[in-house]
Amino acid sequence: MESHEIHITIIGSGNVATHLGLALMEAGFIIEEVFSRNAKKAAELAEVIYAQPITELHKLGQDSDVYILAISDDAIGLMADNLSFLDNKLVVHTSGATPSTALQAHKRRGVFYPLQTFSEDVEVDFEQLPICIDANKKEDRKLLSLIASYLTPLVYKVNDEQRAQLHVAAVFVNNFSNYLYQIGCEITEATDLPFDILLPLIQQTVKKIDSDYQPIDFQTGPAVRGDKATIKRHLKLIKQEFPKYSKLYKTMTELIEVAE
Amino acid sequence: MESHEIHITIIGSGNVATHLGLALMEAGFIIEEVFSRNAKKAAELAEVIYAQPITELHKLGQDSDVYILAISDDAIGLMADNLSFLDNKLVVHTSGATPSTALQAHKRRGVFYPLQTFSEDVEVDFEQLPICIDANKKEDRKLLSLIASYLTPLVYKVNDEQRAQLHVAAVFVNNFSNYLYQIGCEITEATDLPFDILLPLIQQTVKKIDSDYQPIDFQTGPAVRGDKATIKRHLKLIKQEFPKYSKLYKTMTELIEVAE
Repeated sequence: MESHEIHITIIGSGNVATHLGLALMEAGFIIEEVFSRNAKKAAELAEVIYAQPITELHKLGQDSDVYILAISDDAIGLMADNLSFLDNKLVVHTSGATPSTALQAHKRRGVFYPLQTFSEDVEVDFEQLPICIDANKKEDRKLLSLIASYLTPLVYKVNDEQRAQLHVAAVFVNNFSNYLYQIGCEITEATDLPFDILLPLIQQTVKKIDSDYQPIDFQTGPAVRGDKATIKRHLKLIKQEFPKYSKLYKTMTELIEVAE
Repeated sequence: MESHEIHITIIGSGNVATHLGLALMEAGFIIEEVFSRNAKKAAELAEVIYAQPITELHKLGQDSDVYILAISDDAIGLMADNLSFLDNKLVVHTSGATPSTALQAHKRRGVFYPLQTFSEDVEVDFEQLPICIDANKKEDRKLLSLIASYLTPLVYKVNDEQRAQLHVAAVFVNNFSNYLYQIGCEITEATDLPFDILLPLIQQTVKKIDSDYQPIDFQTGPAVRGDKATIKRHLKLIKQEFPKYSKLYKTMTELIEVAE
């Protein structure tokens, strides 16, 4: 099946809807419609992906092969219910945190979860983006897998239980790492150094990771060395200058010490 | 002053000594001697950087312009004391965590701290490596700054107090991030997914960082969204499957919620 034979409707106009819509359009899929209650956003996204903007749900057509709900987690269940007029259509969501049962109003349901962090104005390389798919019917799994394969070589079949764990892992490696960078930023700026000074270190930490090793094999620093004197000095400095990070420093240090 | 006019002795034969020795040699400096009590390691490193291997301290010559102590933090003070026979020579260490006063046996002392994580067999791009220098005499600061400038465009004058804070920041962004990757590795493998599935997300998290913004500007995830339902589900799953990470998840989530 060629990509231009597959018709897609996108529900939503946020970061995921935008990045995914553009990538699907560029891969040759026909984006039939974009739905958003916000007329301006619907029109803006629809224009760049050559789709029909829709602002009232009941005006959605029945011509798409897949309806992708790229909306916030807590809106998925309600939206799925409101789309029950779609007749035997495949309805999927893009959420890592939401079980597929949120779509139970639909006999044909699935998940199309891009495992990535999307921000406005930050480009995403889809060639390097894993897409986790699942569906309750075998034919639909095949279709979603085919669609994903036009976007990325990294297509994974991931069930609800796996996706729930994967989402937790993503929070640790993405959300929490990013917050550690923020702490680094605060500490350097507090001592009149530019945050830039830490960037090569941050980049090298990631470059070291390799599928042949576990990250723990590259663990460096006072905790893994058991360097109590340095840890004590750090804790004293943190307590004085950045007391809100004392607990985090201690918790991480204890975990690394035990892991060793 | 050309690099080949500057003579350097390296004390140590570990990761920092090796990476730094090679970089200095390649930049055209004359590495006079390499000292290590381990004769095999001294010989190995000396051979690749065209230096004289030395295994007994008192055999060190007086011909170098700089003596670089690239040894473990807790050995620096003692080594500096043992090198007091060096007559009015500039002695520096490469440690982020050690105050320059550890070198007080020497009238001319300084710091040459490469802000990077060094592992055996992992190449380091010196063009992208900040070197933090300091010395108690102005002429020596100039000399260290000149040496560093042959290795990298990223040379920073960083005093003891700043370096102490910088080292704490480095622990957060490097050591702790790496451990978060380890947690991601454990969680994915526990659910029969390859750790590879997280790599694009990890890489994108770093790519987003830009000197125009603070990392907090790119913070995503349930904590920054105030998505209590997802946080609750995550904590339940972590408590069941990975209880040792409950405290860390809570601590990070609380920090991010407050930062918002």
